Amino acid sequence: MLVVLKPSATKEQIQSLIAWLEGQGLIVHISRGEFYTFLGLIGDTSQIDVTLLEGLAMVDTVKRLSEPFKSANRKFHPDDSIIEVGGLKIGGPHFQVMAGPCSVESPEQILSIAQSVCASGAAILRGGAFKPRTSPYDFQGLHADGIELLLEAKKQTGMPIVTEIMNANHLPMFEQVDIIQVGARNMQNFELLKELGMIRKPILLKRGLANTLQELLMSAEYIMAGGNYNVILCERGIRTFENYTRNTLDLSAVPMLRELSHLPVVVDPSHASGIARLVQPMAMAAVAAGAHGLMIEVHNDPANALCDGAQSLTPEQFDEVFKKVRRVREAVT
Amino acid sequence: MLVVLKPSATKEQIQSLIAWLEGQGLIVHISRGEFYTFLGLIGDTSQIDVTLLEGLAMVDTVKRLSEPFKSANRKFHPDDSIIEVGGLKIGGPHFQVMAGPCSVESPEQILSIAQSVCASGAAILRGGAFKPRTSPYDFQGLHADGIELLLEAKKQTGMPIVTEIMNANHLPMFEQVDIIQVGARNMQNFELLKELGMIRKPILLKRGLANTLQELLMSAEYIMAGGNYNVILCERGIRTFENYTRNTLDLSAVPMLRELSHLPVVVDPSHASGIARLVQPMAMAAVAAGAHGLMIEVHNDPANALCDGAQSLTPEQFDEVFKKVRRVREAVT
Amino acid sequence: MLVVLKPSATKEQIQSLIAWLEGQGLIVHISRGEFYTFLGLIGDTSQIDVTLLEGLAMVDTVKRLSEPFKSANRKFHPDDSIIEVGGLKIGGPHFQVMAGPCSVESPEQILSIAQSVCASGAAILRGGAFKPRTSPYDFQGLHADGIELLLEAKKQTGMPIVTEIMNANHLPMFEQVDIIQVGARNMQNFELLKELGMIRKPILLKRGLANTLQELLMSAEYIMAGGNYNVILCERGIRTFENYTRNTLDLSAVPMLRELSHLPVVVDPSHASGIARLVQPMAMAAVAAGAHGLMIEVHNDPANALCDGAQSLTPEQFDEVFKKVRRVREAVT
Amino acid sequence: MLVVLKPSATKEQIQSLIAWLEGQGLIVHISRGEFYTFLGLIGDTSQIDVTLLEGLAMVDTVKRLSEPFKSANRKFHPDDSIIEVGGLKIGGPHFQVMAGPCSVESPEQILSIAQSVCASGAAILRGGAFKPRTSPYDFQGLHADGIELLLEAKKQTGMPIVTEIMNANHLPMFEQVDIIQVGARNMQNFELLKELGMIRKPILLKRGLANTLQELLMSAEYIMAGGNYNVILCERGIRTFENYTRNTLDLSAVPMLRELSHLPVVVDPSHASGIARLVQPMAMAAVAAGAHGLMIEVHNDPANALCDGAQSLTPEQFDEVFKKVRRVREAVT
Repeated sequence: MLVVLKPSATKEQIQSLIAWLEGQGLIVHISRGEFYTFLGLIGDTSQIDVTLLEGLAMVDTVKRLSEPFKSANRKFHPDDSIIEVGGLKIGGPHFQVMAGPCSVESPEQILSIAQSVCASGAAILRGGAFKPRTSPYDFQGLHADGIELLLEAKKQTGMPIVTEIMNANHLPMFEQVDIIQVGARNMQNFELLKELGMIRKPILLKRGLANTLQELLMSAEYIMAGGNYNVILCERGIRTFENYTRNTLDLSAVPMLRELSHLPVVVDPSHASGIARLVQPMAMAAVAAGAHGLMIEVHNDPANALCDGAQSLTPEQFDEVFKKVRRVREAVT
Repeated sequence: MLVVLKPSATKEQIQSLIAWLEGQGLIVHISRGEFYTFLGLIGDTSQIDVTLLEGLAMVDTVKRLSEPFKSANRKFHPDDSIIEVGGLKIGGPHFQVMAGPCSVESPEQILSIAQSVCASGAAILRGGAFKPRTSPYDFQGLHADGIELLLEAKKQTGMPIVTEIMNANHLPMFEQVDIIQVGARNMQNFELLKELGMIRKPILLKRGLANTLQELLMSAEYIMAGGNYNVILCERGIRTFENYTRNTLDLSAVPMLRELSHLPVVVDPSHASGIARLVQPMAMAAVAAGAHGLMIEVHNDPANALCDGAQSLTPEQFDEVFKKVRRVREAVT
Repeated sequence: MLVVLKPSATKEQIQSLIAWLEGQGLIVHISRGEFYTFLGLIGDTSQIDVTLLEGLAMVDTVKRLSEPFKSANRKFHPDDSIIEVGGLKIGGPHFQVMAGPCSVESPEQILSIAQSVCASGAAILRGGAFKPRTSPYDFQGLHADGIELLLEAKKQTGMPIVTEIMNANHLPMFEQVDIIQVGARNMQNFELLKELGMIRKPILLKRGLANTLQELLMSAEYIMAGGNYNVILCERGIRTFENYTRNTLDLSAVPMLRELSHLPVVVDPSHASGIARLVQPMAMAAVAAGAHGLMIEVHNDPANALCDGAQSLTPEQFDEVFKKVRRVREAVT
Repeated sequence: MLVVLKPSATKEQIQSLIAWLEGQGLIVHISRGEFYTFLGLIGDTSQIDVTLLEGLAMVDTVKRLSEPFKSANRKFHPDDSIIEVGGLKIGGPHFQVMAGPCSVESPEQILSIAQSVCASGAAILRGGAFKPRTSPYDFQGLHADGIELLLEAKKQTGMPIVTEIMNANHLPMFEQVDIIQVGARNMQNFELLKELGMIRKPILLKRGLANTLQELLMSAEYIMAGGNYNVILCERGIRTFENYTRNTLDLSAVPMLRELSHLPVVVDPSHASGIARLVQPMAMAAVAAGAHGLMIEVHNDPANALCDGAQSLTPEQFDEVFKKVRRVREAVT
């Protein structure tokens, strides 16, 4: 960490700051320039509150040189994390496809989709029971009933399930859920993240619409700081000025997150574009970029889905995507 | 609302869609073009789920012509809403300044700041007890103790208080709080918004870092849909590519929100720039743009504040800002 | 095109507007609603100036339903355009890799790189002679000498060359250049685009840092409106809030541009991330997403390159990337 | 400037880099840490090409501590620059309003508007003769004829004129123009900026749609590096995700630019929102934030303006805005 001091800082102030920093277990190097003096801090700076330092009258700016995340940092955990979920593995050499409808709608719908995506080769069943919607007047999901239907489909097909949580008070309903998803809008709902750090179930953490990779990793850190190391990162598109697509899938996030962190990285190509016919090229591109998994929306009747139908594939289209993805994966590994 | 149909839509599909829409109480006008057919929907379209329509195979795009928010919409409530808080009014012709530290730190700190900003003319005391921080390792506030200290300062000075909530389970602690603040990162924490719709206390709703004004108004709508009409909107800066300032204060939001909605609009110039010396010009500009109030950070020792000191004013600086703001307000009203 | 009229529009105003629009050769359908009246315009609306209509007192908003670009539009040219350059083809089934240094620096440098990328399989040699730099104090390229060195390398290797133009007055120097590149910062330098519409040489048009795909296609339209149909579109990364990477490569632009337009689409994975080790995964992802070509920076001594060395590959790394890219291309075609 | 070296840098590499840097006239301080070694560079670092340093294999990152702009930097020119234009002054304590139509359309139009804004108190006449338009099919201005009409209006009213240039080859037409405007889309048209550095006329440089303040100042630096110190900076709105307004006026740019630079800063509130009824509040806010001037669109018949009518005021509305602005200016100075 580098602390740039103002020209007005007095010798006494500087000595007192250095003493305080050394008291935090850091080694401090000082360099004096014409306009600035700067302090190089060596040691574990992840515990240092940057805004606190910046608040000091004598400080001009503070620049981190090492990352503020620690548990998620590859520097301290060089090997890929491999996360187990219902007998399956994800991360490292293990690649998994999660598929299913945006919203769980009925027993027939979820079971029929589960059976068909399972037959195509998907390993994990996704489906929304709690749906975050911008408008209070839009369909919000079947809630507890939706989770029941997912669990029934899990029993029938043997597929582990992943579904989104919006409120830590709902955790008891998620006891049989295999992976708990945190949606993009809750990526910085720190109270929810802290509660999910208290359990030991895998958490699929989606990147917020306008959040940086560092912020995503700091949110992973919130969960890991509680002791839950089973975090899967998910790129699902960011907000940009482009409006032909709903969001812009940031595929450079995949190699970048894999370099910065040991956690598995999956990609959701369905929400990013909001357009079903872009799912296939973007799914293939995600795999070529090195994703550990994909999360894809499939609906047996996308034209009449209650939610996000525009971005869902039919089971037949999904089968085709799965085959293409497998060919790309073979080409790149 | 306008529904653009694909060239491939058949007559039967179109008839069936029109019948369904008419069943929702809407009047439907049809226009046929060379490439597209479009349906004009007349009536209350706020209850129509756009993504549901977009999911239909025959639909190309759906465009809203009227706003999707209803309770917050000035069209249906032409007069300014005036919100009462602890004997004060905010909204319409009533202008109020909220001031206080970013975080409550000690009994002496909060009382001393409260007395000084009150003497300068501030009407409402702000102070954070629960602090959302990007890093789990940064200072997170005094929690229940912080609220106790705010209440003690309220008792001593008579000032109503405003403080942030991060978790609906904490609501019992907020019983004596006059205005409950929802922070930028929780603007789309819909579960929290729904709970705040159940109470009748004023809610100060901050705009998210990358959210549009329509999304802000839809979040207000979540609270109002529960019956709580006491919502104060707050512009506090949005994320842009500029990095000399932490965020970019969007002052055009003030006249635009006042045109779209009847709710009061206040501006927080402290968080937007993150730089204390920008607070004065931006506070004056906010008032010139028509803000109903300001929220300003003041700290008796900004250089040593535990949180966000870089953007806090000293009580003396605040006194100067308050005087300047009053002169601008007199010039524009 | 849809024109939404204000409630205050009088019958006479509406009649007069309709008459004017019909005079432009358009068919006009009218729908009246409770709050708005709207006019559906059918016919060739690409010649209608939207801001002119929006300026009318009676008009609330104008929404285009069809795209404002015509020559670049796939609707009117369903088949892929195939562009010929020095005996090679690009577009449709033809895939080409352009490689070379960011800046041309010396005869030895450019020739050595040309020979090595040619041996790896690259078809076209790239190299900058005019370099747009944010700072007037940074290295700006060898100018005419740089073009001479490129032409010499072309003579020796037989590779066609692509290089950037910054000023239409320089066109005489580009007479032997095979593809003229327009850089991201000049994407909306309309005076330059108009001049390039007057010639018949292929133009590689890079997307601006914060421009939409529609704006990119409108800039292509500027060139095509002059009669030069040899336009190659290039995605090279857009500005986002992410700062681990310099820009964010928008790979969904590839299938989206291919859907909207018949022009070839190539991807530059080097400038987007600014990081050499991301070039390989992003090049593979670009091919998986359907790119018609790649533009990759290669430098024989990236650590000492005069410009943008951080994002350049060594010839050995490029050879490896080329092999991987070929495998992905085989998997997806 | 701070150079962070990789752990892999050898002693010999470091010695050789230090020797090279010292050869550039810099003083180098070295600090060694557990993960990084860093070099603090003291002296005139504005001439150092950051990407060149970052390209070195041993370098991890380079961080500037001082600004890369020099001529525009307030540190080296503490006093406000005051720019003279046709007998008027702008900058420091001198405040000026520029007003006129978006496009010059006819002799009657420009003269009538000039007389009316002059009567209201505007000092400088604006009007577009060359119009940058996204579509090649939209109205592009009257070109040389437009400039003739502006000069005629100048003769009749005595007002200096400001108008936009798009091509350095047009400079001879601008000989009688008082202030030459560079539009947002040409802010990084470095070839044009260099030519404008060769003349001595005041240049009004508009900030690009997605450019940072530092990039704006670097573009000013391009002009100043040629010897033309008469640069006026103009904030005109940046691209954000908000779509109720066309762009977002960044008023914090005003105090920030005034702190970073000695150049005058004016604000264009008309283009930013694209909505005439927002011009008044935003003009007042700009003045409250400390702007040295305003540029406002006025049209005698905005409903029928050929270009950008939606954002133009009538002369009567402008008169009202001018009075309000004067009151705010009196309150803040």
